Amino acid sequence: MKVARFDNGRIGLVVDAGLIDISDIAGAGTGEWPDTASLRLIRDFAALRPQLELAAQTRQAVPLDSVRLETPVPWPSKVIAYPVNYHAHGKEMGAGYRAKNQGFFLKPPSSVSGPADAIELPLVPGREVHHEAELGIIIGKQCRDLAPENWREAVFGYACLMDMVVRGREERVFRKAYDTFCPVGPWIVTADEIDRPDQLSMKLWVNGELRQAANTRDLVLDIPGMVATASAVMTLYPGDIIATGTPEGVGPVVDGDLVRIVIDQVGEMNLRVIQGSRGATEVFADAYVPPIVKQELTDR
Amino acid sequence: MKVARFDNGRIGLVVDAGLIDISDIAGAGTGEWPDTASLRLIRDFAALRPQLELAAQTRQAVPLDSVRLETPVPWPSKVIAYPVNYHAHGKEMGAGYRAKNQGFFLKPPSSVSGPADAIELPLVPGREVHHEAELGIIIGKQCRDLAPENWREAVFGYACLMDMVVRGREERVFRKAYDTFCPVGPWIVTADEIDRPDQLSMKLWVNGELRQAANTRDLVLDIPGMVATASAVMTLYPGDIIATGTPEGVGPVVDGDLVRIVIDQVGEMNLRVIQGSRGATEVFADAYVPPIVKQELTDR
Repeated sequence: MKVARFDNGRIGLVVDAGLIDISDIAGAGTGEWPDTASLRLIRDFAALRPQLELAAQTRQAVPLDSVRLETPVPWPSKVIAYPVNYHAHGKEMGAGYRAKNQGFFLKPPSSVSGPADAIELPLVPGREVHHEAELGIIIGKQCRDLAPENWREAVFGYACLMDMVVRGREERVFRKAYDTFCPVGPWIVTADEIDRPDQLSMKLWVNGELRQAANTRDLVLDIPGMVATASAVMTLYPGDIIATGTPEGVGPVVDGDLVRIVIDQVGEMNLRVIQGSRGATEVFADAYVPPIVKQELTDR
Repeated sequence: MKVARFDNGRIGLVVDAGLIDISDIAGAGTGEWPDTASLRLIRDFAALRPQLELAAQTRQAVPLDSVRLETPVPWPSKVIAYPVNYHAHGKEMGAGYRAKNQGFFLKPPSSVSGPADAIELPLVPGREVHHEAELGIIIGKQCRDLAPENWREAVFGYACLMDMVVRGREERVFRKAYDTFCPVGPWIVTADEIDRPDQLSMKLWVNGELRQAANTRDLVLDIPGMVATASAVMTLYPGDIIATGTPEGVGPVVDGDLVRIVIDQVGEMNLRVIQGSRGATEVFADAYVPPIVKQELTDR
């Protein structure tokens, strides 16, 4: 199934004919704050599945282009990200480490945006903001210390994800934390629809030019390893998101660019980049910071 | 006012006579998942204040030791942490940077624990787990791009906070993310009760031995600067927590230790350290990681 969020927190299923509203079943679109309906839907999905399937068969679909899609999980507890998880990207960054011996970092839930939202570039004069195309994993179950071989128990589904970053040598989390720096969508494809998540093709274009092309078979730390590593350290919750790392080909985006990400069997997003008027900070202005170089020794 | 959480998500006010249950006013203790009642209470606090004050005057208090205190905000959207924010701690770590030119990192909400919870050491053979005593700031208002001079608008209150960490050179977030690695409590003292948060004395003992003693006047990036820097990058939400950085004197804790943190006008927590049987990960076992040294060049 494809689970989408739309029009101020409503939740729907994407089918061939369009979108089927299941907000009533999901308890969504009620205006609650914070909006955690998608977390409960994910937690309870197996039990609700018969109701959802009946709705998919019997309810009238609306055209997908008649709604505004929103990011499927707007208030995740965690966005867990694995740095340098493709060897070729590690080489292009000159990084001497890989996700396997580094662990993960976190992006703030406030950075998550949706398929209809623009990526807003902050006021960071002299700095480049780069695109990083990634497969997103959505966790489905509360768990801790899960063995790698049991990883499927914990995975609810998959989505396209972009991990935007201001290049530099400051704290990596800081440079990756801006609002709209984590587009996730266009929906979640449930895990049962993807036989081989370890063989998914992923591509990213900027203004029609192919910039990134990779396959999840080239991940350094694989999906079972990522789920196990995260759960070794933290209790995972339904709706937690894992950003699995980006392949080679990262590069700058500027005002007016159109970024397209496509992951086979998952979906695609077309995101406009705009220059915003927010986000200026003295951290990026400090003379301590060395000039940006292509070969950053530690992009952390 | 002192806002406490207790006995499976109930919320109360701490007064001289003990604890006054205000769960009905706060909509707390209903068993909702995730438990976001404290976020809404913080958001709506000004409007609810007359009701809360009436309750404090008219309701019967129960003894504080008759309840089990829990962490006041169990499901924050963000735990924002500033690294190396006291010069003397920067020197003891051999760090060549300060929070002012590094920005922040994040700790996962799942790491937050309460004043009655033990700190659970994970299975990380050969590694030290260190205590870091910090003042915690609780954000009260949704905001973005707040000017430093308007910082008071955004601050709901203060709490004691400990930022536990596995020493090493892996990704800092990873080493600081374990469950129970962020005790916050024993309650939140609202901002109006603390005239000079920039002159708060803070101390930490292990088994009665004083290990850390500092004053927030020695912060490198001050509280207005921390709020402004965080809000320059991210939309802040009610209940977001800022860990303001630790002073010198960090050091290891082991199974059976009792850690005591006291912050003037805020409160104190006495936390038992136990060796757990969880948390083993190959990341810390990898031969790539250099041996731990006292003078880590980059504790990130």
